[in-house]
Amino acid sequence: MVSSLRLPALTSLISPSFTRRSTVSLRRRLHLRPPLAAGFSAQSAASSPTETEDRVDSKKSGRVQDRGSTDRVITPRSQDFNAWYIDVIANAELADYGPVRGTMVIRPYGYAMWEAIQDYLNVKFKETGHSNMYFPQFIPYSFIEKEASHVEGFSPELALVTIGGGKELEEKLVVRPTSETIVNHMFTQWIHSYRDLPLMINQWANVTRWEMRTKPFVRTLEFLWQEGHTAHATLEEAEKEALQMIDVYTKFAYEQAAIPVIAGRKSKVETFAGADKTYTIEAMMGDRKALQAGTSHNLGQNFSRAFGTQFTDENGLRQHVWQTSWAISTRFVGGIIMTHGDDAGLMLPPRIAPIQVVIVPIWKKVDEKTGVLDAASSVAETLKNAGLKVKLDDTDQRTPGWKFNFWEMKGVPLRIEIGPRDVSSGSVVISRRDIPGKQGKVFGISMEPSILEAYVKDRLDEIQSSLLQRAISFRDSNIVDVSSYEELKEAISLGKWARGPWSASDADELRIKEETGATIRCFPFEQPQGTKACLMTGKPADEVAIFAKCY
Amino acid sequence: MVSSLRLPALTSLISPSFTRRSTVSLRRRLHLRPPLAAGFSAQSAASSPTETEDRVDSKKSGRVQDRGSTDRVITPRSQDFNAWYIDVIANAELADYGPVRGTMVIRPYGYAMWEAIQDYLNVKFKETGHSNMYFPQFIPYSFIEKEASHVEGFSPELALVTIGGGKELEEKLVVRPTSETIVNHMFTQWIHSYRDLPLMINQWANVTRWEMRTKPFVRTLEFLWQEGHTAHATLEEAEKEALQMIDVYTKFAYEQAAIPVIAGRKSKVETFAGADKTYTIEAMMGDRKALQAGTSHNLGQNFSRAFGTQFTDENGLRQHVWQTSWAISTRFVGGIIMTHGDDAGLMLPPRIAPIQVVIVPIWKKVDEKTGVLDAASSVAETLKNAGLKVKLDDTDQRTPGWKFNFWEMKGVPLRIEIGPRDVSSGSVVISRRDIPGKQGKVFGISMEPSILEAYVKDRLDEIQSSLLQRAISFRDSNIVDVSSYEELKEAISLGKWARGPWSASDADELRIKEETGATIRCFPFEQPQGTKACLMTGKPADEVAIFAKCY
Repeated sequence: MVSSLRLPALTSLISPSFTRRSTVSLRRRLHLRPPLAAGFSAQSAASSPTETEDRVDSKKSGRVQDRGSTDRVITPRSQDFNAWYIDVIANAELADYGPVRGTMVIRPYGYAMWEAIQDYLNVKFKETGHSNMYFPQFIPYSFIEKEASHVEGFSPELALVTIGGGKELEEKLVVRPTSETIVNHMFTQWIHSYRDLPLMINQWANVTRWEMRTKPFVRTLEFLWQEGHTAHATLEEAEKEALQMIDVYTKFAYEQAAIPVIAGRKSKVETFAGADKTYTIEAMMGDRKALQAGTSHNLGQNFSRAFGTQFTDENGLRQHVWQTSWAISTRFVGGIIMTHGDDAGLMLPPRIAPIQVVIVPIWKKVDEKTGVLDAASSVAETLKNAGLKVKLDDTDQRTPGWKFNFWEMKGVPLRIEIGPRDVSSGSVVISRRDIPGKQGKVFGISMEPSILEAYVKDRLDEIQSSLLQRAISFRDSNIVDVSSYEELKEAISLGKWARGPWSASDADELRIKEETGATIRCFPFEQPQGTKACLMTGKPADEVAIFAKCY
Repeated sequence: MVSSLRLPALTSLISPSFTRRSTVSLRRRLHLRPPLAAGFSAQSAASSPTETEDRVDSKKSGRVQDRGSTDRVITPRSQDFNAWYIDVIANAELADYGPVRGTMVIRPYGYAMWEAIQDYLNVKFKETGHSNMYFPQFIPYSFIEKEASHVEGFSPELALVTIGGGKELEEKLVVRPTSETIVNHMFTQWIHSYRDLPLMINQWANVTRWEMRTKPFVRTLEFLWQEGHTAHATLEEAEKEALQMIDVYTKFAYEQAAIPVIAGRKSKVETFAGADKTYTIEAMMGDRKALQAGTSHNLGQNFSRAFGTQFTDENGLRQHVWQTSWAISTRFVGGIIMTHGDDAGLMLPPRIAPIQVVIVPIWKKVDEKTGVLDAASSVAETLKNAGLKVKLDDTDQRTPGWKFNFWEMKGVPLRIEIGPRDVSSGSVVISRRDIPGKQGKVFGISMEPSILEAYVKDRLDEIQSSLLQRAISFRDSNIVDVSSYEELKEAISLGKWARGPWSASDADELRIKEETGATIRCFPFEQPQGTKACLMTGKPADEVAIFAKCY
């Protein structure tokens, strides 16, 4: 059975890797076993179980001897966070490297997480009055040059099409890095009067940015996102919209992804190329680095002036429209992995999980198999009919113990075990992914549909809020209030976030980046009361800022 | 109020147009009125009503004088089908030209039709065991060259990225025209044993083909589609899959889009570049030209041999996988427009329509307004709660007559009118888009929620099947059975489809194309019984083929 070995992690061996840095770290960690090594047994697959298995027999049962193992060795998170992240992505089959440097193939399990994000946000966007549409991805190069700071921000990252249909093109085409320019070009044709406003649209699309340092999900040459674009008659309306959308993102992060982001305003230095104001949600990853997880921009009249996007107001005067844009991308999937995962692999919040409940039937003797499988199927049906995402892992190619580890690594929130004794007693055993070992395991939950359904739903709700609470505790214990640059440096050097009053210059902000590696992540919306003195200059400061190293 | 004129049709004036041919026809038809012409009144907007309005007063009611008009002159379909098509797309705001030649912006109303297509197919794909994922759109040029007929088919149509991040690239990157090559590159890394098969995936994506003759939705430089890709252990399984997916498309066309496609197999000449067999669904448009509306390919081992996509079978032998791919694109939206539309504009099958029911409140006096609007809102709520897509057009910027024409032009299947007399009698007036004038109008339908909901749902079902029946009649009356080349030529010259026995050579097939403009659309799955003589050679023919001019 040697030839049937599945070696997903080896993919990263074969394919061109992302960046020089990640190449190095990948090579360093690679488990260079002969891919067809004989005798690579279930024991080694289960060699680092995270669960204290209290029904040891189940580890060895199953009808067929394990046919090998996936190379499921995940670098411990505490040992090397980056290596852990790459291992989790490979082993959980979330993504793989594409053939072109820095590109990524999003595999079904990872894509299903993105679909969960889309399903939620798509509804919210429509509820808040936006319509989906689609703009071409090829943008004339001249468009990008029209808005001064936009071209400065994006020109180093552009992919350019210069040949089409076998011929050199007269004008180079930009593969969209973002769509403000082409959106404005079209808005000029659709907006005439104040009655055409607000114009509120969104598109789900791929975008391309020629990044030098890439990392799966977090920063890739091509990624998927949604980009909202709106035009309004007044500055106030645009500001309200920009704030509304960062609020939609914030609620999504808390309620669906269980990520306690900090929402706030970017500093001038960190503002989007072409925006007056950028609002952001900043998430603390498991290594305490910040991840910018979504942004919403008040574009002012920057693009409307560059493109002449005007309307006739109620007094018959021509005015430039006020605009916003806002986006969340597949980067968010990386944020979910890095917020909740642990040494055993992924840990998914139930509302994002592609599989919420996995059912593992356990039998030793042939005459037990039918009864166990029937009960397992019936439980699966019950839960599916209750609207849950359920996987019945009834293959006899793997032992139950192997399956336990596998689905833990895949981050499935709840596992239901059903053995012959459970069938006799009409009950099941339920284990929580977020509580390892015996503590997370409950015996004797009735199979009776209404009881089981209610129990499972309650546990999923508990896990959802437990993941959020855990992330909040982690976040709060890693933010340090600082009142001087010395304190800031110390906090950053300890890997923490520093929060302190700030009214210093852009130059000071850049100096901090150079000296500590930290940047202003945001001026959070939630501000302490009272007068403050700038941590750098001692002068009065209206606001505190949060400093951190980031992805 | 002159400045508030909305002139959607003028967009096509301003933006670069699609091809030389369509530019000419666009220019020929353009209504070069001064955009700000004063006194462009509601009368002219309602100048070509398609409905014999039996409540004439409603045409002139409304609280505010019409503030101008959209330039809603649609070229009659019978006069110039292509001009009619372009006019419908512009006036119904389905799409607009992008700034780059041959590109298209899909506007919200057109995109909502695509979303209806996606929503249905996405569920069917998952039910048939496929998972969504995402492959990068940049493909190394060398990949395209690996499969001989594939490169021959696609190389003239490629867009190439040659510059990335400010630097000339070592290898040109192809912007995907289709993904068989990159899919196989990845499949080689994921497929090891027969246990990894079948591998069945799908992606929703944009693709780029540098087409010379473009037409909105039907053929654009960039378009949206889904592409399914599967790998199997045997030829038989691949063949079964290819047939299963063309069947999914066929059912979709009949049951959702009310398009009675003819499903069949492509001739060798018309087979996809890289496939052994191509199955197709062919639809007859309103001008009787054929539209290839979806395809499913049995790729045999062509790509697996080119890329070395192998698996170890149950006997331990290495084998190349057998593959399929299948796709439906935004072209299908064009097919819906050209199947059902009439001189008044779009006519949408209820299961595709972004708005299934429009409610137009009618009042003359101020004291009538509140009662009418309250009743209209209540009816809208009732129908929305019943799961229907409802638009309440309660603006007082337009007269009811203007609204009738507008929503007819947008193809909304049902219109509900509510006036003061209706409020008094607790009833509404309901008009069908597919039956013009009095014949399609029914008075005195009770507003009582359960009655109204049932009535509306029944009518929508009737419209859905009526559109299909009408299209079937049209199709069948325009297919001519031929037994000689002379008869074929006559049928084609009359604009019809010719169906006749065929066993002649590829050269003969190409000669027919040259001499008549018609191609073999397919060998339909439904074949007449009995022996047949080839229409061209008189030799025995196993099958009849369908010949037609096509888009």
